[in-house]
Amino acid sequence: MTTLTEILSKRRPAAIIAATGLATLVLFLVRPSVAYAAGVEEETAFVFNTFSFLIWGALVMWMCAGFTMLESGSVRTKNAAMICLKNIGLYSIAGLAYFFIGYNLMYGDIIGGFIGTPGFMYLPSSAEVALLDAGDAEAAAAAAKVLEEGSYSVMSDWFFQMVFVATAASIVSGALAERVKMWSFFLFTLILTGIIYPVVGAWTWGGGWLAEMGFVDFAGSTIVHSTGGWAALAGMIVVGPRLGKFRKDGSVRATPPSNILVVTLGVFILWFGWFGFNGGSQLALGSAADAVSMSIVLVNTNLAAAAGVITALAVSRPILGRTDLFAGLNGAIAGLVSITAAPDFTDHYWAVIIGAIGAVICTAGLKLLERVKLDDVVGAVPAHLFAGVWGTLAASIGVAGGAQFHVQLIGILAIGVFVFAVSFALWKLIDMTISARVTHQVERLGQDAGELGMESYPEFVLMPDLDEEEE
Amino acid sequence: MTTLTEILSKRRPAAIIAATGLATLVLFLVRPSVAYAAGVEEETAFVFNTFSFLIWGALVMWMCAGFTMLESGSVRTKNAAMICLKNIGLYSIAGLAYFFIGYNLMYGDIIGGFIGTPGFMYLPSSAEVALLDAGDAEAAAAAAKVLEEGSYSVMSDWFFQMVFVATAASIVSGALAERVKMWSFFLFTLILTGIIYPVVGAWTWGGGWLAEMGFVDFAGSTIVHSTGGWAALAGMIVVGPRLGKFRKDGSVRATPPSNILVVTLGVFILWFGWFGFNGGSQLALGSAADAVSMSIVLVNTNLAAAAGVITALAVSRPILGRTDLFAGLNGAIAGLVSITAAPDFTDHYWAVIIGAIGAVICTAGLKLLERVKLDDVVGAVPAHLFAGVWGTLAASIGVAGGAQFHVQLIGILAIGVFVFAVSFALWKLIDMTISARVTHQVERLGQDAGELGMESYPEFVLMPDLDEEEE
Amino acid sequence: MTTLTEILSKRRPAAIIAATGLATLVLFLVRPSVAYAAGVEEETAFVFNTFSFLIWGALVMWMCAGFTMLESGSVRTKNAAMICLKNIGLYSIAGLAYFFIGYNLMYGDIIGGFIGTPGFMYLPSSAEVALLDAGDAEAAAAAAKVLEEGSYSVMSDWFFQMVFVATAASIVSGALAERVKMWSFFLFTLILTGIIYPVVGAWTWGGGWLAEMGFVDFAGSTIVHSTGGWAALAGMIVVGPRLGKFRKDGSVRATPPSNILVVTLGVFILWFGWFGFNGGSQLALGSAADAVSMSIVLVNTNLAAAAGVITALAVSRPILGRTDLFAGLNGAIAGLVSITAAPDFTDHYWAVIIGAIGAVICTAGLKLLERVKLDDVVGAVPAHLFAGVWGTLAASIGVAGGAQFHVQLIGILAIGVFVFAVSFALWKLIDMTISARVTHQVERLGQDAGELGMESYPEFVLMPDLDEEEE
Repeated sequence: MTTLTEILSKRRPAAIIAATGLATLVLFLVRPSVAYAAGVEEETAFVFNTFSFLIWGALVMWMCAGFTMLESGSVRTKNAAMICLKNIGLYSIAGLAYFFIGYNLMYGDIIGGFIGTPGFMYLPSSAEVALLDAGDAEAAAAAAKVLEEGSYSVMSDWFFQMVFVATAASIVSGALAERVKMWSFFLFTLILTGIIYPVVGAWTWGGGWLAEMGFVDFAGSTIVHSTGGWAALAGMIVVGPRLGKFRKDGSVRATPPSNILVVTLGVFILWFGWFGFNGGSQLALGSAADAVSMSIVLVNTNLAAAAGVITALAVSRPILGRTDLFAGLNGAIAGLVSITAAPDFTDHYWAVIIGAIGAVICTAGLKLLERVKLDDVVGAVPAHLFAGVWGTLAASIGVAGGAQFHVQLIGILAIGVFVFAVSFALWKLIDMTISARVTHQVERLGQDAGELGMESYPEFVLMPDLDEEEE
Repeated sequence: MTTLTEILSKRRPAAIIAATGLATLVLFLVRPSVAYAAGVEEETAFVFNTFSFLIWGALVMWMCAGFTMLESGSVRTKNAAMICLKNIGLYSIAGLAYFFIGYNLMYGDIIGGFIGTPGFMYLPSSAEVALLDAGDAEAAAAAAKVLEEGSYSVMSDWFFQMVFVATAASIVSGALAERVKMWSFFLFTLILTGIIYPVVGAWTWGGGWLAEMGFVDFAGSTIVHSTGGWAALAGMIVVGPRLGKFRKDGSVRATPPSNILVVTLGVFILWFGWFGFNGGSQLALGSAADAVSMSIVLVNTNLAAAAGVITALAVSRPILGRTDLFAGLNGAIAGLVSITAAPDFTDHYWAVIIGAIGAVICTAGLKLLERVKLDDVVGAVPAHLFAGVWGTLAASIGVAGGAQFHVQLIGILAIGVFVFAVSFALWKLIDMTISARVTHQVERLGQDAGELGMESYPEFVLMPDLDEEEE
Repeated sequence: MTTLTEILSKRRPAAIIAATGLATLVLFLVRPSVAYAAGVEEETAFVFNTFSFLIWGALVMWMCAGFTMLESGSVRTKNAAMICLKNIGLYSIAGLAYFFIGYNLMYGDIIGGFIGTPGFMYLPSSAEVALLDAGDAEAAAAAAKVLEEGSYSVMSDWFFQMVFVATAASIVSGALAERVKMWSFFLFTLILTGIIYPVVGAWTWGGGWLAEMGFVDFAGSTIVHSTGGWAALAGMIVVGPRLGKFRKDGSVRATPPSNILVVTLGVFILWFGWFGFNGGSQLALGSAADAVSMSIVLVNTNLAAAAGVITALAVSRPILGRTDLFAGLNGAIAGLVSITAAPDFTDHYWAVIIGAIGAVICTAGLKLLERVKLDDVVGAVPAHLFAGVWGTLAASIGVAGGAQFHVQLIGILAIGVFVFAVSFALWKLIDMTISARVTHQVERLGQDAGELGMESYPEFVLMPDLDEEEE
């Protein structure tokens, strides 16, 4: 007869089994609270992450309509159709250039921290293609392979990144409106979206040298908005101001928006789309932490924009001499650009202050540009470049924390020098070859009639244009 | 040698283990059908609920663009820029006021069922902040804490509630267009969004006395739309009609929309945004039941709006003397407002009828206001107040079920008396101090030129304004 | 003493148990990778699928605003308000007709592969209603029943299908603008959305004879866009061209868009909404495979549209004689329509080529229609019908794979013959009874003043209209 001890010793394996079985049962029953650490179930997270890219990315695409409205309502009626053409054209060029060249330069294996692998074209992950071709029987294995490779669909990421490129290009078209030549602008857009922006992106979001230094730019105050702003500034210098904008007596000719309803609509579109721009930049939605962070991002984005509007309206009176709607609308943009570098920190007060300061900088910047005789038709440089620099620095001061001031400064300067220098050289090259600017005759006539042979509002009786006599 | 019985008796523990292990395996394999009761996994539900607030909330923010277009296209061109300024301003003020004061008054611990805890400012849940600060090791514990506190991110809820406040304020700006002073309007907006609306919200969605009585208002036919409508009505009485609107001979001067394309665009934006307004008001998306309910909400919302358009077009001929596009567009709004109190019930026929009746009430209301010489520029009171009252009552009759008629009536009256009385007093106070209305000179000139020193369409040749001679 | 062998033999049951328990534990721990085959958890998938229908469906509804802007900006100012009225009216009629008649004809039990069960009205799934009425105690069972019935909410599917119907009807209003009578158009819309489109839908998406043959049309190049195009073509033939469009000397009178900003906005809205149109047509989002496919759909949709814009701008010079914005905008539409039949295949190069060819066909089609003296005000037939036919064929050639060329051709022809014949007969019938066309007097005056007694831009001074003298 075996003793109890003997039995127990003999049954040790069974005891282990018992423990195992019970532990499994307990694990199963308390599953939700145990699973927290890993976020939601892996494939569910994959769907969330991917869907977040797609739906927020669609909203960012919609921002192109916002830029189009903002710009075409801001220019004089004789150039409004050209702005429409440039904007739908630039979005299309950006989409193709980023597909054929840009994405690989930005996210391919980064060579020496400076540039991605030049590849003729982006190809979707082979695992994803295999998943789609898989029959039901192989689906499980194919899906496992996809989930091993990443936590979202590669193409959804491409889509989200692509709409960002277009935003950078949109900034340029507004600043140079009413005199830059259509084909010159398209050529510049091609290089900007196919090479310049992707290089900046490789340094940062692609994991290059600035990323390694710890440069912080959540959704692109510098990477997207300042990049667009620097490119616009270089263009403004090369192309020069509109005829008659700066009079010989030193005074500045007012060129008010020709359709303020359309401008306002454009700003609302941008504000709306910015929820996708910043919200989607969380880059994930597969856990409670991601969802919380995305919520804070949207709240801070809205607070900064709201503070921007109110502040710009308030300071426009002392700075510009009147409560100015156009300044208020630019205040919204400036607030949005300012918060874009770090909307994911938790102090909402600071978001309000960042947006407010951004709006002051933008409004003062509108005045400053006029002083130095730079003609920025829509205020793109103050709203995107100046506010972008501020926002990127702001991410390292106050209670924002996280970023280091000197690294932010290095990032701002490095990107600024690179984008401005390359853009300036490119604009010069374009100007010396096919000319960056339309002829004076076309400019007086308007680009719509002069370059496109059409009118934006052919049935409306318009004021006689005073350009010629004003020069 | 041990007998079989002996073996079995000795192996009883093993049998238990076997049962346990097998049960667990079965539980695991049939998991989906067992998990139904609890809806989807807890953290997954958290993400769904939060994302629903964010994406639908973004669509509700977009409604502000809809109101802006609807109103700026409805007013005469000389006041269109002012409408743009008021609308982007009110959205910004609402966003800040609700942040600094409103949300706490509405959702803080409700004191005596009447008002929330006044707190200087809303602070995000400490658990959520801890989650964001948590390292990987502590993430599981932090996430567990967040999920214990609630089933969605607090900030996503704030975002969704904030865009609702702005909607209420938007209604006021349209009704008082073309004569209310900018700063007076902004001051009223501040109180409306910081205090008046949050008090109404505390009574109802905040869990106060009306909620306890069983008052039903799914997405705010009364709480949002009638509140805005009452505030507008009080303002209309204090501010008075536009100069020349009601002639001495008793006739009414027609003031057709100056840009009907923009008005139509505005209504499409509102309809689109309303899917967020009503869909998001399901407040959850973490189970099949929520998803089904949200689907029914969207279907009923669309049916009521469609019925509103057709009905308004049909009755506009007998009531207004012609098939009227403006009435049809307001019919869409009225249908949407009417269904907003209870889009979640299941009878779609009733949704069609509710929308149709709402449109009849709105169209007749347009005529009625003219009769009593109240000047509502965009028809905000018929569309938001009258249709809102109807919708709130409709939630208790027909096959809608759920709500009790007398409770709905008490809610409508209590909120109406409170909002109207406070608004009336506030408008009076504003009028006696800084004046609620612009000078006759500014009104004749237009608020754009008179108050802002700008024009909406500076390059277009406009008809000479006939205001002066008409008075 | 028992030998080891004996012990082992005796312990075999325990060994089985051990294996079971351990296997379960392993299964639990590696759960994510094991669960792949079934996609995400069943109720989670239900929520994803349903939400995908709702949010993407809302974007498709927004396309109606796009058509409205595209069309009302394209027509002469004297007919712009009528376009607004027709578009909000057609969306409302489509929504009600598809509810009362259409959906059942399309998705009810298909009789003989040709038509659904005529039922007076669509009723939501009884299981879903039961779920909503279920108390907490019965919720699990009710949810289980819903999940048994399907993987998404029936009403979310209805919502998504309904907005598609409206798209088909929108195409007609643009082509026939400026001369088709309001009530005649609404009557045609009622039949198109209540019967004609649902029959086509029953043959294909409803599972009828074309579906059984293997006809491929992912989101409706033929089913939606060509159907709208054929109906428009039939109407154009019956109604005839606008007065003075084709002069006696054989020349064609140019009728440029009256508001090109609004047209451009419309195209941006359509492009944005198309992400919902094609993305939502994945019809599911409950697995990594669905998410990957949806991502590819959005990328291909964008690539085809971008290629369409650039190609149309490029070929507009040789074909139309100038770099034409209107052609570029139509190129976007044509690219989108072309890719709609099969955006879910994986070769992105081919998407670029499909969009580019679609744009060439569309631009050439604009010219062709003028040659044959068919007056298509917005280019709806080239963009939706011609590009739709191309896209449907393209799904069977090149590397698109999947579809069979002869089946695609049969589908295109069968749907074309059916829709064109029925539409032609219906337009003829309408013309013989209440007349399809407004009187020449109303046409000269404009439909806004003539039929609606209003003006789109009453305060703007417009050019004198030259219609009369031109005839």
